Amino acid sequence: MQDVSLLAPKDVRELIRKQEITGPTAGMSKGYTQANLAILKKEHAFDFLLFCQRNQKQCPVLDVTEVGSFSPALLAKDADIRKDIPKYRIYRDGVFTEEVNDITDYWEDDMVAFLIGCSFTFETPLLESGIPVRHIEENCNVPMYKTNIPCIKAGVFEGPTVVSMRPMSPEDAIRAVQITSRFPAVHGAPLHIGNPRQIGIEDITKPDFGDAVTIKPGEVPVFWACGVTPQAVAMQSKPSIMITHAPGCMFISDVRDEVYSVI
Amino acid sequence: MQDVSLLAPKDVRELIRKQEITGPTAGMSKGYTQANLAILKKEHAFDFLLFCQRNQKQCPVLDVTEVGSFSPALLAKDADIRKDIPKYRIYRDGVFTEEVNDITDYWEDDMVAFLIGCSFTFETPLLESGIPVRHIEENCNVPMYKTNIPCIKAGVFEGPTVVSMRPMSPEDAIRAVQITSRFPAVHGAPLHIGNPRQIGIEDITKPDFGDAVTIKPGEVPVFWACGVTPQAVAMQSKPSIMITHAPGCMFISDVRDEVYSVI
Repeated sequence: MQDVSLLAPKDVRELIRKQEITGPTAGMSKGYTQANLAILKKEHAFDFLLFCQRNQKQCPVLDVTEVGSFSPALLAKDADIRKDIPKYRIYRDGVFTEEVNDITDYWEDDMVAFLIGCSFTFETPLLESGIPVRHIEENCNVPMYKTNIPCIKAGVFEGPTVVSMRPMSPEDAIRAVQITSRFPAVHGAPLHIGNPRQIGIEDITKPDFGDAVTIKPGEVPVFWACGVTPQAVAMQSKPSIMITHAPGCMFISDVRDEVYSVI
Repeated sequence: MQDVSLLAPKDVRELIRKQEITGPTAGMSKGYTQANLAILKKEHAFDFLLFCQRNQKQCPVLDVTEVGSFSPALLAKDADIRKDIPKYRIYRDGVFTEEVNDITDYWEDDMVAFLIGCSFTFETPLLESGIPVRHIEENCNVPMYKTNIPCIKAGVFEGPTVVSMRPMSPEDAIRAVQITSRFPAVHGAPLHIGNPRQIGIEDITKPDFGDAVTIKPGEVPVFWACGVTPQAVAMQSKPSIMITHAPGCMFISDVRDEVYSVI
């Protein structure tokens, strides 16, 4: 078995396209940016792009395809967004209807694909600075919560901010603010540190998405805006069709993580 | 005469709305962000927003109005984009036709206003760090040049990057990279330092826009992406109507400069 963490992104995408990889992509092609996917029809594209523009911490756009094009050219010139993600979810009128490994049969000429930044990109520099990332230690999905922080509305799109949470010592939290501030294109600095109730989270042990993780004595929960926000918001507006990646099954780009640091 | 550098943004906008101020806004409401304006009809709005998204260094979007709305709500809740800029320019089919102080009579229900970041925002911290800004010293407009650096195309919008230039010592240039990197929302770090020919500028003494400034012995020219780019590119696509601010006559927002720093 090849070590997929060391494979070039194009080689992993080829395995995905052949459906030899059909599951989560965490850890694959280490050092290269992975992205969330949201596909909408042209009629919603301006409002959705404007929503992302107004809510950049929640929805950091990395690439948008031309109308009808399935090439995410800024992220990977030779990629085909219809085939190069291990698993997709189809939503009709806001309802999840099926999960597939290839969306060629679902693609329409007026579709636009949005590739949105993912916190995987800043977890590497956190780990490299010696900050433990609990859900990686506990080998589960990051805990995610709906908050009472509203996104700024754009056209039909509105809704609450979803956050991801990583517990750490207060000293590590300060360093994590510094590190993630360097990456505004992938959520940037945290939105909140400390008290979950202040942002509308009633029970930290019950995440709305993902898995609960251990918070050790003396640790504080640190909350970042999460790429699930735009998907949740788009679904709430019940578009006739919307296609996303399945949780954890991301698009692996040819762009190195560090390219997205501003300093 | 009031010192307009100390007036609150809303008070300056009121003087502008009454047409008691009809000229350049440099230095007014010191510490508050000023913005470039580009108004297009809805039919071009998605492509233009996508162009800005793909070329964030050249076109850092600070606010986009809802279709038909003249309220730049993120930048100033009570402002009216039709009246609160001292001087506007009207372009028809890409040709400059007239200059006016109020565009109420030109406004159409399907117009969208784009407010785009301006390097004024990072000149304040440059000055505060003791880095001289030559065009301010020489009391003229910043020199701007067309380069051979292409923007990334989006729909009908494409063209070369326009840059502004500030000459300084190599030591100040290094510090200026650090300072402006903190402000990705207003052009961020420079695009080039040193050799104008490398980016397609044949004669540094002949800017394409603005005024030439002195480059002293031992100084290097430092080039930043410029907010003139999106206007130049939009005009090149010859939309039936486009409205912009007149050079130097910017929109003064209620947002403090420092809000746009990422760290």
